[in-house]
Amino acid sequence: MAEHFADRLTAAIRARQAPVVVGLDPVYERLPSSLRPAGVGLSAAVTAVESFSRGVIDVVAALVPAVKINSGFFEALYEGGVAAYYRLVTHAHDRGLLVIGDVKRGDIGSTARLYARGHLDQPAFDEVEPTRIPDAVTLAGYLGENAVRPFIDIARAQGRGVFVLVRPSDPGADLVHDFGDATRFYQHMAALVREWGERDELIGKCGLSCVGAVVAPKDADSTRALRDALPRTPFLVPGYGAQGATAAACRPCFRDDGSGAIVNASRSVIYAYEKPAYAERFGEDWRAGVQQACRDFVSDVAQVAGM
Amino acid sequence: MAEHFADRLTAAIRARQAPVVVGLDPVYERLPSSLRPAGVGLSAAVTAVESFSRGVIDVVAALVPAVKINSGFFEALYEGGVAAYYRLVTHAHDRGLLVIGDVKRGDIGSTARLYARGHLDQPAFDEVEPTRIPDAVTLAGYLGENAVRPFIDIARAQGRGVFVLVRPSDPGADLVHDFGDATRFYQHMAALVREWGERDELIGKCGLSCVGAVVAPKDADSTRALRDALPRTPFLVPGYGAQGATAAACRPCFRDDGSGAIVNASRSVIYAYEKPAYAERFGEDWRAGVQQACRDFVSDVAQVAGM
Repeated sequence: MAEHFADRLTAAIRARQAPVVVGLDPVYERLPSSLRPAGVGLSAAVTAVESFSRGVIDVVAALVPAVKINSGFFEALYEGGVAAYYRLVTHAHDRGLLVIGDVKRGDIGSTARLYARGHLDQPAFDEVEPTRIPDAVTLAGYLGENAVRPFIDIARAQGRGVFVLVRPSDPGADLVHDFGDATRFYQHMAALVREWGERDELIGKCGLSCVGAVVAPKDADSTRALRDALPRTPFLVPGYGAQGATAAACRPCFRDDGSGAIVNASRSVIYAYEKPAYAERFGEDWRAGVQQACRDFVSDVAQVAGM
Repeated sequence: MAEHFADRLTAAIRARQAPVVVGLDPVYERLPSSLRPAGVGLSAAVTAVESFSRGVIDVVAALVPAVKINSGFFEALYEGGVAAYYRLVTHAHDRGLLVIGDVKRGDIGSTARLYARGHLDQPAFDEVEPTRIPDAVTLAGYLGENAVRPFIDIARAQGRGVFVLVRPSDPGADLVHDFGDATRFYQHMAALVREWGERDELIGKCGLSCVGAVVAPKDADSTRALRDALPRTPFLVPGYGAQGATAAACRPCFRDDGSGAIVNASRSVIYAYEKPAYAERFGEDWRAGVQQACRDFVSDVAQVAGM
């Protein structure tokens, strides 16, 4: 029987003293100039994006428990980018990291079963290396339980996990998620995630479910209320760094004992070399900039989580 | 300047007298046995799924204006399946069909821009054939305007389109979409789609926007109310056939003059050979079964649309 996802995640967080995840959102145009040849074609762009991503993974592997690989940035490069996405999942696994596939899929049941095959299920084909499958994926639950059930069943059986969108970080999403009067739409989604995910059979030894929620920090009171509403649901917390949220703002996403959440930073870590503070110190050595930014990120978040 | 998507779609519907789209949801296990070798590996599965899909496209090309290719069924076969997806878009274009990429992507603005590159934008690389990009895609708008804006901007500039989920066909989605009291969540999404899509600069000569909505028929009154609430929004209508909706149930999705909607059928057409009525008549000739089921589907829907 595979070890429960939340137990694996909890152990990895403790081992690194880092309740965080580094997000890979690589855009070719923003890569270090040393990785960008002039007049690049598609396959060279895939190579550059993959090479940069491998570099980031190598640098952060000793510092964080997990990386989140954002499928959209690879799909921008068509099937070649998708192939690179899978190779990077394997590479991160080889470096001892847990991997969250940030795919945000959500479709009706008959289609969700197929998405689950490609994105979370143990491969059915001998020639497909099992390490290419992430440990968890992000999902959109807006099409209801049938959209997430195939993923949850796989997660339970295979020691994997899912994170269902409850409160996205994009301020533009508030117009959708704050809909409603006495109860807001995001609270309704939270109640559904609790119903889908906080069943006893889905809970690990650590007391957390393999069904998590994506919860961006907004005002402290409403975030704390979500934390209380989903006592056994691990939170994947977007919005830190480039999107403006501070570690203090993320604090209410954690339980009182500092467990129950992982904070994601993507652009603020992987593009650290763009920032004067890091560029002046490390110059052309973009890896050193990423490493320092990752260290700063970890210590910032670990502190508010009381680690 | 590229011709407006809604004008192209309207012309194609008129030319075929068929306000419909055939959906490609190919699952290896359900393919005709002649296409399924024993002990198949991944690349043989991709070949079989692609070969079947090409066959369906060839058969329906003379009968319908458009096909909808469901990305999930190709992603189930990893990057090789994704490559097949793109080849099938090209193949359908070569056969004179409009193509809707059923991808249902929805993410925060910074990620949506990248998804739009891979799924709707004119390729930025010379070696990528422009015909591999669908004419329109389905989108999830639950993360707000920033999640759809990059796609809408492309649609407007390039004569392409989008269909934003407003009322999905899966009955399980009702628990999400019927949320709310005086106003239901699906009505709120409809109001947002109207705001995003019914701006004058997005409207074609036919009076319809390049921003459409996915609207499954439920009870006639609520469907008619959605039609009235979105007077210039084309509807992509799921739920017909295998999912149980009749042509009559789809009628309120059309405007009074029979314009403004395309009804999708996927499994009831592409797997016609599984049904005794077609199997008895056409035997091993699965293409003939698909062709007849497509003809039956077209005449059924064209009748209620008054064509």
